[in-house]
Amino acid sequence: MEAYQHMKKEELLALKERLTVQFEDIRARGLSLDMSRGKPGKEQLALSMEMLDVVNSSSDMDNDTGVDTRNYGLVDGLPEAKRLLAEMVGTDPDQAIVYGNASLNIMFDAVSRSMTHGVMGSTPWAKLDKVRFLCPTPGYDRHFSITEYFGIEMIPVEMTEDGPDMDVVERLVREDEAVKGIWCVPKYSNPQGYTYSEETVKRFASLEPKAKDFRIFWDNAYAVHHLYADEDKQDQLPDILSLCRETGKEDMVYEFVSTSKVTFPGSGICMVAASEGNRRDFLQHLKIQTIGHDKINQLRHTRFLKDMDGIKEHMKKQGELTLIKFKAVWGELERELNGLKIGTWTYPRGGYFISFEALDGCAKKIVAKAKEAGLVLTPAGASFPLGKDPKDSNIRIAPTYPSLEELEEAGKLFVLCVKLVSIDKILEDR
Amino acid sequence: MEAYQHMKKEELLALKERLTVQFEDIRARGLSLDMSRGKPGKEQLALSMEMLDVVNSSSDMDNDTGVDTRNYGLVDGLPEAKRLLAEMVGTDPDQAIVYGNASLNIMFDAVSRSMTHGVMGSTPWAKLDKVRFLCPTPGYDRHFSITEYFGIEMIPVEMTEDGPDMDVVERLVREDEAVKGIWCVPKYSNPQGYTYSEETVKRFASLEPKAKDFRIFWDNAYAVHHLYADEDKQDQLPDILSLCRETGKEDMVYEFVSTSKVTFPGSGICMVAASEGNRRDFLQHLKIQTIGHDKINQLRHTRFLKDMDGIKEHMKKQGELTLIKFKAVWGELERELNGLKIGTWTYPRGGYFISFEALDGCAKKIVAKAKEAGLVLTPAGASFPLGKDPKDSNIRIAPTYPSLEELEEAGKLFVLCVKLVSIDKILEDR
Repeated sequence: MEAYQHMKKEELLALKERLTVQFEDIRARGLSLDMSRGKPGKEQLALSMEMLDVVNSSSDMDNDTGVDTRNYGLVDGLPEAKRLLAEMVGTDPDQAIVYGNASLNIMFDAVSRSMTHGVMGSTPWAKLDKVRFLCPTPGYDRHFSITEYFGIEMIPVEMTEDGPDMDVVERLVREDEAVKGIWCVPKYSNPQGYTYSEETVKRFASLEPKAKDFRIFWDNAYAVHHLYADEDKQDQLPDILSLCRETGKEDMVYEFVSTSKVTFPGSGICMVAASEGNRRDFLQHLKIQTIGHDKINQLRHTRFLKDMDGIKEHMKKQGELTLIKFKAVWGELERELNGLKIGTWTYPRGGYFISFEALDGCAKKIVAKAKEAGLVLTPAGASFPLGKDPKDSNIRIAPTYPSLEELEEAGKLFVLCVKLVSIDKILEDR
Repeated sequence: MEAYQHMKKEELLALKERLTVQFEDIRARGLSLDMSRGKPGKEQLALSMEMLDVVNSSSDMDNDTGVDTRNYGLVDGLPEAKRLLAEMVGTDPDQAIVYGNASLNIMFDAVSRSMTHGVMGSTPWAKLDKVRFLCPTPGYDRHFSITEYFGIEMIPVEMTEDGPDMDVVERLVREDEAVKGIWCVPKYSNPQGYTYSEETVKRFASLEPKAKDFRIFWDNAYAVHHLYADEDKQDQLPDILSLCRETGKEDMVYEFVSTSKVTFPGSGICMVAASEGNRRDFLQHLKIQTIGHDKINQLRHTRFLKDMDGIKEHMKKQGELTLIKFKAVWGELERELNGLKIGTWTYPRGGYFISFEALDGCAKKIVAKAKEAGLVLTPAGASFPLGKDPKDSNIRIAPTYPSLEELEEAGKLFVLCVKLVSIDKILEDR
């Protein structure tokens, strides 16, 4: 197919007319499609239904160490739940604290706690003139919402296929004492699906922050969320906690993981893993905040998933279902956009998103146009601090939630919107 | 029996010798008994086991309004869960937000949020020179731990059988702008089991706080936790939210409730109910903090408990089991201490605790002595801000957790410790 940029004005106008007819046809059908959030599809949720049976009225409710999971106690989680979640990210269970249903909540509370109580004895951030976080972009909108909510200044750092631009990260962290944290989704990143390279992770473990209370927020959300069962096609991520121990910087990182997209979103379990000093900070807060998390749900998860083999087996099925959806989107993008030079997209090997790069200045319009015809996409700019994509080019595509039929319709509509908005843009720019 | 105060020194010494022999006998047996926390006993937990079956692998996972409870969404809770918990405290479901497994967590977060973001637009408390909370004492230790953790100054207010001394509360709230809150357990209070009178609740709803951001933290933890099925023997508490609407002070109160001691501690669901303005504060925070709470557990609760009739039926069984334990403690106290004038205790009609008043200066020693022989009681002073009971006389007794056999042993040991410590005290004072 011919690149739009090379087409004459009349050709583009004629094309636009034809595409507009197609668009109006779709709009007339009054669709209601949602590709906005990384929500598992029904068939994925069905994979975990048996977890609802493994704990029932005739179950032994004691855990492996003889604690009655129905009652109060074990504020830092069941030992077997620590083991399971630590294994998921390849780290040491002794570093784990198991929380409730959302790792986002642990991250929020960690920032909140740093604001009011500081970090391992440092000045509470709320008492400082300026607190800054580095934000690899595009990134996870809910991370940025947390720092925004607490009035923390966000400094975008460009993402590459190997992770954030480490030259920039190293410099900012070394030079600026106000830089207190960095948001990372190191594996199958949100939204691009990039996995930090071994070198990147090593450079993270060797950072020399000016601020003693600088912390890496290592949100390993997609640790086991591979699209392919073949291990050669799976991304690998070194264990940052071990690397930080080796460099003597074990206090520099908090690692988070959850089963939100392993079992049930909202009804999973989650963990933070960190050094002894950091764990004390977390626990000191936690012991005042709650009497304990839902241990019956922890029991449910450990009895259902069992161990790393169980997780792999389960995630293989999740991956198969996810891959079908990703392929449907990729197929449509390739069929309709290859060669037109009006967009590029990523081919992650895991995670929940495809990142689409439109022509500069087109993302907002594409999302708005899709909405006109009944397709809700993630708001353009959402993957950037304060929702501001400087190039207005990035769109996050979340293929998992719609059914395959809906996804095909959504895909068709999406490429149509990309084409229409791009034609306008090209004509405007001439 | 003769009051110890009236006994001669020789008589007391002879008595002490006999009691010491009994004490040593018990100590030699190496008991391990726990009356420290309000934890339900095994037979109480058994009452809710069927809740684990009402949601299983063949269940319809959609809620009443057609939302798939397994997936993300409905950050403020399932409508039917709002209805259930609002009904538990006799308030309007539209005012409810359903949270996770611990109402303590909502209270903690509310204080934390007020520190960092203020209350409905007020100055964040962290930026104020001084923040004070009124603490009806004795009260719930975990409330006081929250305010202590955030560096909030706590002002004790004496509890009476009708609730806190309202003359003091009204004056302090009216005169001091630094007074931003008061901790209340208005029904079957922790630890005395007192229920605020109708007049007290009305006076609460008519408070005239100098601080616009003053809030009543109304922890209705034992709303349905009656010991007696006969309604004439149940305490009644007016709905403070309605009363505050009537006085035009609807923003002045947050009401909390949970099912922690209805179903499973740690695996229950909980709620805050508040005015529209307050709800906005809670939701603004909540939407950044999490994607939503465990809706499957909300579904489990609504399908198991169903409605207020279901709750009443369930709590009738809980009450029967609890009453047996309370009676065992009362029986021992009456048999062994009546007439000795070395202690008084409460006779609540619900809740989880009996409050014991020893002679002044004896509580710590009694608790320590009991521990020597293997009985763990709530630390003396725990029911007071910073753990400091000015009279060192109050001991909280939590009868529910031990088995009946253990409880009888614990009771015998407890009264023995009370007697021994009291004799020493009386002799010292002479």
